[in-house]
Amino acid sequence: MTPVGTEVDIAVVGAGPAGLFAAYYAGFRGLSVAVIDSLPEPGGQISAMYPEKDILDVAGFPAVRGRELVDRLVAQAAPYKPAYLLGQPAERLEAVGTPGRGGRFVIANSTGLSVRAGAVVITGGIGTFRPRPLPAAADFSGEGIAHFVRDPGEYDAADVVIVGGGDSAFDWADMLSDRARTVTLVHRRTAFRAHAGTIERVRAAGVGVIAPAELITLRGGDRLEAVEIRSADGAFDVPCQKVIAALGFTANLGPLLGWGIDIRDRRHIPVDTAMQTNIPGVFAAGDINDYPGKVRLIAVGFGEAATAVNNAAHFLDPRQPVFPGHSTDAAAAA
Amino acid sequence: MTPVGTEVDIAVVGAGPAGLFAAYYAGFRGLSVAVIDSLPEPGGQISAMYPEKDILDVAGFPAVRGRELVDRLVAQAAPYKPAYLLGQPAERLEAVGTPGRGGRFVIANSTGLSVRAGAVVITGGIGTFRPRPLPAAADFSGEGIAHFVRDPGEYDAADVVIVGGGDSAFDWADMLSDRARTVTLVHRRTAFRAHAGTIERVRAAGVGVIAPAELITLRGGDRLEAVEIRSADGAFDVPCQKVIAALGFTANLGPLLGWGIDIRDRRHIPVDTAMQTNIPGVFAAGDINDYPGKVRLIAVGFGEAATAVNNAAHFLDPRQPVFPGHSTDAAAAA
Repeated sequence: MTPVGTEVDIAVVGAGPAGLFAAYYAGFRGLSVAVIDSLPEPGGQISAMYPEKDILDVAGFPAVRGRELVDRLVAQAAPYKPAYLLGQPAERLEAVGTPGRGGRFVIANSTGLSVRAGAVVITGGIGTFRPRPLPAAADFSGEGIAHFVRDPGEYDAADVVIVGGGDSAFDWADMLSDRARTVTLVHRRTAFRAHAGTIERVRAAGVGVIAPAELITLRGGDRLEAVEIRSADGAFDVPCQKVIAALGFTANLGPLLGWGIDIRDRRHIPVDTAMQTNIPGVFAAGDINDYPGKVRLIAVGFGEAATAVNNAAHFLDPRQPVFPGHSTDAAAAA
Repeated sequence: MTPVGTEVDIAVVGAGPAGLFAAYYAGFRGLSVAVIDSLPEPGGQISAMYPEKDILDVAGFPAVRGRELVDRLVAQAAPYKPAYLLGQPAERLEAVGTPGRGGRFVIANSTGLSVRAGAVVITGGIGTFRPRPLPAAADFSGEGIAHFVRDPGEYDAADVVIVGGGDSAFDWADMLSDRARTVTLVHRRTAFRAHAGTIERVRAAGVGVIAPAELITLRGGDRLEAVEIRSADGAFDVPCQKVIAALGFTANLGPLLGWGIDIRDRRHIPVDTAMQTNIPGVFAAGDINDYPGKVRLIAVGFGEAATAVNNAAHFLDPRQPVFPGHSTDAAAAA
């Protein structure tokens, strides 16, 4: 593969929403930026898994489809021409000299990626991710099983069974309730891990919620025809052409674990209030970072991305203030 | 005045962007919320000072007019019916019993406001604010002096002189450069406190930037006709019908200073990473709070508001997790 080499002020690792906003904000501060991601398109988990889902927690958008949010973030950053290095896993992080005192970070991989940067902002989300398989699907080879709703139109007039009790399960039940013929949600516990408002809306929409229960058998040939559900009332069949297994993901920070950055539980990177990791000049924002009280929301990741980039700008040039001021800052406007 | 009494889970003090998003997020989590502000309309500084200004740092919006952003935030919160108590200065904060253990906070004022809440989120921005006067304007009683651009149409085909070197000055120069006849920016120092990208755009648009220089005299009768500017080259007159004095604000936290909350430099409230102040159950988000690396941007305030509300939910009911999980959280979706 042709080497992909570039030299920038800030390397952003992860092209999800937090990474895209970090790229925008770096440009807005006059810094050059490269965005590296192993996925072939920007948007991270949203593009890979939820492009059609309404996202409800972005400030200023009562609801915004995942795909639209990603498009808007890319358009927002575009005037500053970030270098997108997509389909490029960031395998290694090394320091050449002392970053912050003339040295540089180098992010590289075995297929030729080599990005030199004065500072690094890691916005890697949950790392690489894979949906958890539905045990009952192990013996079924027909069509009709999905882990994400990429195109809601595929569920029109279908009998849909959603397995899971988290936000994905309820969000999809909410999304499909007025286009599928029937929607049934099956969860192995009676406690749900979803927003109270969504649960209420789903119940009000007439979605059948069966819990505690398990989906134990998929029936059909080339195509799914029914599922067998076992609950306290015994086992029974439900007509079903489409199952959505919303059982979560296994995720893995992969090569990041070897970068010398402190990592908690192999999943999260502790940061200080400036979003800096234990390595000066390496920052982390969005779902991947951690601190007491952390809330893993896109809106929080956006704020952290802006905090990380502004503090990175100060790291790159300590004569620059962390924040150059903006129009609503009493002192700064003087 | 008729007493305004209400009982809610969360009282939000300040109806600026961070407060409005806090109200939304509280509703989204199933909590009742009241939003208190001394101003008569929601939007804080944006509505009071910059309703027509393009805001450039909100994630997902390449640019959004201040008024539109406020309208969208109000619409986003509307389904959860926050109680807006506007035109109501929050003068006193008291605890009745021990909040978090059955006690309540009470926010009250001398005209009858009395809000009982389980937790408080302070999103008071810079407090009450007042534009700094332009010294040269002290002896001029005619029309043509403003501190904010509320309606850009008023500047059509005018010769405009903007005094100041901060973001407001440059943002307004940027906004008016293609509708005013001429725009001249005068600043007393050669260093500007504005985003590099905006400064470049303003210079490229042909705005005359005179610095270091001072506006020393306003000339005209009922209406401004010219201004006298003094720079290193001496004093000279510039035709001018409109002056915008973008010299910043004096701001004051006012009654908040007496609430028993730790306050730094009489301006900012230190918070921990959960956005909690020194008083358990009292949180602060947005421009009013402070911690190392703090960046005063709307996008950061939004994230902090969501963090504050989620941690407040846990304070209200410790059986509730700080964050109930969302669709992109690997563990939570399971």
